Amino acid sequence: MNPRWFYSLLFLSTLLSGLAHWFWPGEAVRFTLASLSLILWAAMLGKATESVAHYAGDRLGGFLNATFGNAAELIIATFLVREGLLDMVKASITGSIIGNLLLVLGLSLLFGGLKYRVQSFNPVLAGHNVSLMLLAVIGLFVPAALSFQLSAGERETLSLIIAGLLIIGYILWLIFSMITHKRELTVDQKEVEGEKDEALSANPASETPDWSKGLSILLLLVSTFFVAIQSEWLVGSIEAVAHALGWSELFVGAFLIAIIGNAAEHSAAIFLAMKNRMGAAVEIAVGSSLQIALFVSPALVFISLFFQKPMNLVFTTAELTAVAVSAFIAASISRDGSTNWYEGVMLLIVYLILGSAFYLV
Amino acid sequence: MNPRWFYSLLFLSTLLSGLAHWFWPGEAVRFTLASLSLILWAAMLGKATESVAHYAGDRLGGFLNATFGNAAELIIATFLVREGLLDMVKASITGSIIGNLLLVLGLSLLFGGLKYRVQSFNPVLAGHNVSLMLLAVIGLFVPAALSFQLSAGERETLSLIIAGLLIIGYILWLIFSMITHKRELTVDQKEVEGEKDEALSANPASETPDWSKGLSILLLLVSTFFVAIQSEWLVGSIEAVAHALGWSELFVGAFLIAIIGNAAEHSAAIFLAMKNRMGAAVEIAVGSSLQIALFVSPALVFISLFFQKPMNLVFTTAELTAVAVSAFIAASISRDGSTNWYEGVMLLIVYLILGSAFYLV
Amino acid sequence: MNPRWFYSLLFLSTLLSGLAHWFWPGEAVRFTLASLSLILWAAMLGKATESVAHYAGDRLGGFLNATFGNAAELIIATFLVREGLLDMVKASITGSIIGNLLLVLGLSLLFGGLKYRVQSFNPVLAGHNVSLMLLAVIGLFVPAALSFQLSAGERETLSLIIAGLLIIGYILWLIFSMITHKRELTVDQKEVEGEKDEALSANPASETPDWSKGLSILLLLVSTFFVAIQSEWLVGSIEAVAHALGWSELFVGAFLIAIIGNAAEHSAAIFLAMKNRMGAAVEIAVGSSLQIALFVSPALVFISLFFQKPMNLVFTTAELTAVAVSAFIAASISRDGSTNWYEGVMLLIVYLILGSAFYLV
Repeated sequence: MNPRWFYSLLFLSTLLSGLAHWFWPGEAVRFTLASLSLILWAAMLGKATESVAHYAGDRLGGFLNATFGNAAELIIATFLVREGLLDMVKASITGSIIGNLLLVLGLSLLFGGLKYRVQSFNPVLAGHNVSLMLLAVIGLFVPAALSFQLSAGERETLSLIIAGLLIIGYILWLIFSMITHKRELTVDQKEVEGEKDEALSANPASETPDWSKGLSILLLLVSTFFVAIQSEWLVGSIEAVAHALGWSELFVGAFLIAIIGNAAEHSAAIFLAMKNRMGAAVEIAVGSSLQIALFVSPALVFISLFFQKPMNLVFTTAELTAVAVSAFIAASISRDGSTNWYEGVMLLIVYLILGSAFYLV
Repeated sequence: MNPRWFYSLLFLSTLLSGLAHWFWPGEAVRFTLASLSLILWAAMLGKATESVAHYAGDRLGGFLNATFGNAAELIIATFLVREGLLDMVKASITGSIIGNLLLVLGLSLLFGGLKYRVQSFNPVLAGHNVSLMLLAVIGLFVPAALSFQLSAGERETLSLIIAGLLIIGYILWLIFSMITHKRELTVDQKEVEGEKDEALSANPASETPDWSKGLSILLLLVSTFFVAIQSEWLVGSIEAVAHALGWSELFVGAFLIAIIGNAAEHSAAIFLAMKNRMGAAVEIAVGSSLQIALFVSPALVFISLFFQKPMNLVFTTAELTAVAVSAFIAASISRDGSTNWYEGVMLLIVYLILGSAFYLV
Repeated sequence: MNPRWFYSLLFLSTLLSGLAHWFWPGEAVRFTLASLSLILWAAMLGKATESVAHYAGDRLGGFLNATFGNAAELIIATFLVREGLLDMVKASITGSIIGNLLLVLGLSLLFGGLKYRVQSFNPVLAGHNVSLMLLAVIGLFVPAALSFQLSAGERETLSLIIAGLLIIGYILWLIFSMITHKRELTVDQKEVEGEKDEALSANPASETPDWSKGLSILLLLVSTFFVAIQSEWLVGSIEAVAHALGWSELFVGAFLIAIIGNAAEHSAAIFLAMKNRMGAAVEIAVGSSLQIALFVSPALVFISLFFQKPMNLVFTTAELTAVAVSAFIAASISRDGSTNWYEGVMLLIVYLILGSAFYLV
């Protein structure tokens, strides 16, 4: 698209969405305008992320993107906790994890794989991601498996302990991956090796980004801010729209909110996958789901202590099944550090299976 | 065995089995004759498969064999669905999956491993097989885990959706493995590398098959046809024999029918393993179980719509445990693309554990 | 520590612990003295193990250590079975398995990883260990998953069959790993490769052990004997101490007894990990848990037949969850044959999660 047209449309849709949000009573109009604005800001975010990633290295760029994308989710979830809508919070946490592991990763692998025969990324990082996913599943599985043997108070206590341990684990992971073992976990080197297979693929080093380092960071911040705003407005109107369509809270929380809330990760990851930077794409999808499972979700357990209803980590059977199943198939597919279009198809099939099950439950 | 003797015995046992089937009332005699004929036709099928595999390449040969072997099972299962014996259908699906993953693969690894120290096959194909097995387990696990939250009608709907998704996944897998990524998934190259370890092993290239390409294909079709016929006759008489021995329907369906129905895969896979063509042997065993889980089983859900009782994909705890456990241990053992006799022993031990459990349940 | 001081303290603490055990009524004093003596004997055992491992090769040394360490546990468990305390036996079996897979292995990876950036060991052995762990989990999972469909008598029968199959599997594993495929599964070669990364690391070949081969073996036997004795005395006094503190039998069995009973493995494994002999350290931790799951636990099913109450293999949900979760995370971390400090942290976090859950249940 012509850049001038793009920026005009971005400005216009944001303005109209804001006017509709504050002054227009019709949910359908607000929904449509917020969607349009969100999609454009997400595209903007994708471009800014790629530009920052160019300066910062893939891994740090991916981390920044996951963080900014999930900041929106943490804010939305905190509002839900304040309202005491704890089931909706757990559904949206579940939805974000499986949305990233199955939908975002699946689409990245599929679209990247349709363009490049085989794409590869650092298998050492992939192995660690698998172990971290397993840690997250264990953190949710243990309280659920033992919940019938525990009193409500004991469930609270166990949830707080596990939440604390997962946050400690996540902080140590940042120290490990960013400081002590940055070298082993870099995605750059492998990217370059992977691209040797494809003689005509884009070489990141030869691309000159449109924006300076400072402007890239500024645009990353600004577009993350507007993605968060538009996500929230969309969520506000989507519930009314969804209820009019007769969908359950579980389905809305786990699929609709999660898909919209992860639009940023979507566009950014698929964008990078189609540029054969699969390492950065995986980092966004998997890193984002790990951050939700190991940081956002445990943090909400502590945040909930400031409100009337405390939240525990005991998820429902359907939610636990969804998270465990997603972690296992994503682990099996990403373990070898090499991907293709069919592996994307498998992730999307599992996403559709879970989506159908959640719709019917 | 002298070829002339073999063909004479094959002809004689088939003739006598046919006469007994139509004119003889005693189940024991019919059982014995059908068994003998089946074993001989299975040996014939093994030889024809190997000959076709020589011309077609290991992978396509393995696929053909799995298809022909499972055509028999699909026909038998369709008759059971028509009779409304849906529990027996699910038990025999379960039995075919675990029979291929544990018994056929276990015996192949054991006998191949007793002859060759280490045998290897394409680890990329092995990795994909593992992910596909996991997809099949997820397809069975999700409806079972959520079944208590669903009405009978919702279970039907979910089963139909999942069945449709699994069939789409299977068709795309065929496109992926046969067309777009044939090169990466070939078993031939790795076979040759694997054989370098063993200086005196048989070199497939130097063997001249007894039959021409056309005759090989014809004999493959003919022997598959007779294996299917004899399997069906055997199944007809074995139920009476089994009930006389006091065995449960679950055990008969999951073990006796499955062992006999997979006799073709057995002999062919073990035959190839002992020739150090482990890639083709694994393709038969694993490919066959994947085809049952991702194609035969979902197809039966749709086929059942034409009869009075619709079949869903909600399997019992025992069946689901058996399939999941088999998929996990087979995945763990096959993942590295290298096998030995002890890995065969582990698969057989799991088969015996499940067999004992099914016998007692 | 100065050797003369060490031996004096070892002699003195053992003497005082013995006097307290036979003549002193106060549990706290007996507990403190037995603890001190145990820690010193465990250190002695670690040194003797390393010396024997130097002569015997890492793998045989690791096996000897695991065997001697578990002989103590088998003796203690047999006494518990005689008293009919079957729940305590199962809790201590669970605790030993997870203690080795999470605490011993976690501390080894953490302390080894703080000294060496990346440590490696034979990935072929690691792959087999993962499959064996899975076999052990299957052996416990199948009777538990089907237990509600089985009568008490059928549960006995199934337990005896599975116990027999696991013992056969374990014996064949010894034949496989010690005789037929010793070469592929050696940890020595990989160790040396691993050490190339670290120029200044200790080279095992250049170290001259303090003791001769004969003396090393004698000291291994003597220190194992005293570790067993002191473990038993400690267990005798710790129950009174624990009950005074208000802890449940499950927690005491699975954590306190297991930690103390595995003190020998602890010190030896961590000692080796800090000398960058990670292959031998993993062999102690994983080998020990496999031996308990595949040999000690099934053997107790048969041993229990000689006493009034027969023991079955139906473990509780909490125990099964703990074993399965430990096996999965340890498998995920050890599969690639390469470790670092953060992987140790993940194992320890899971250990703390399970410890908290068992404390509250």
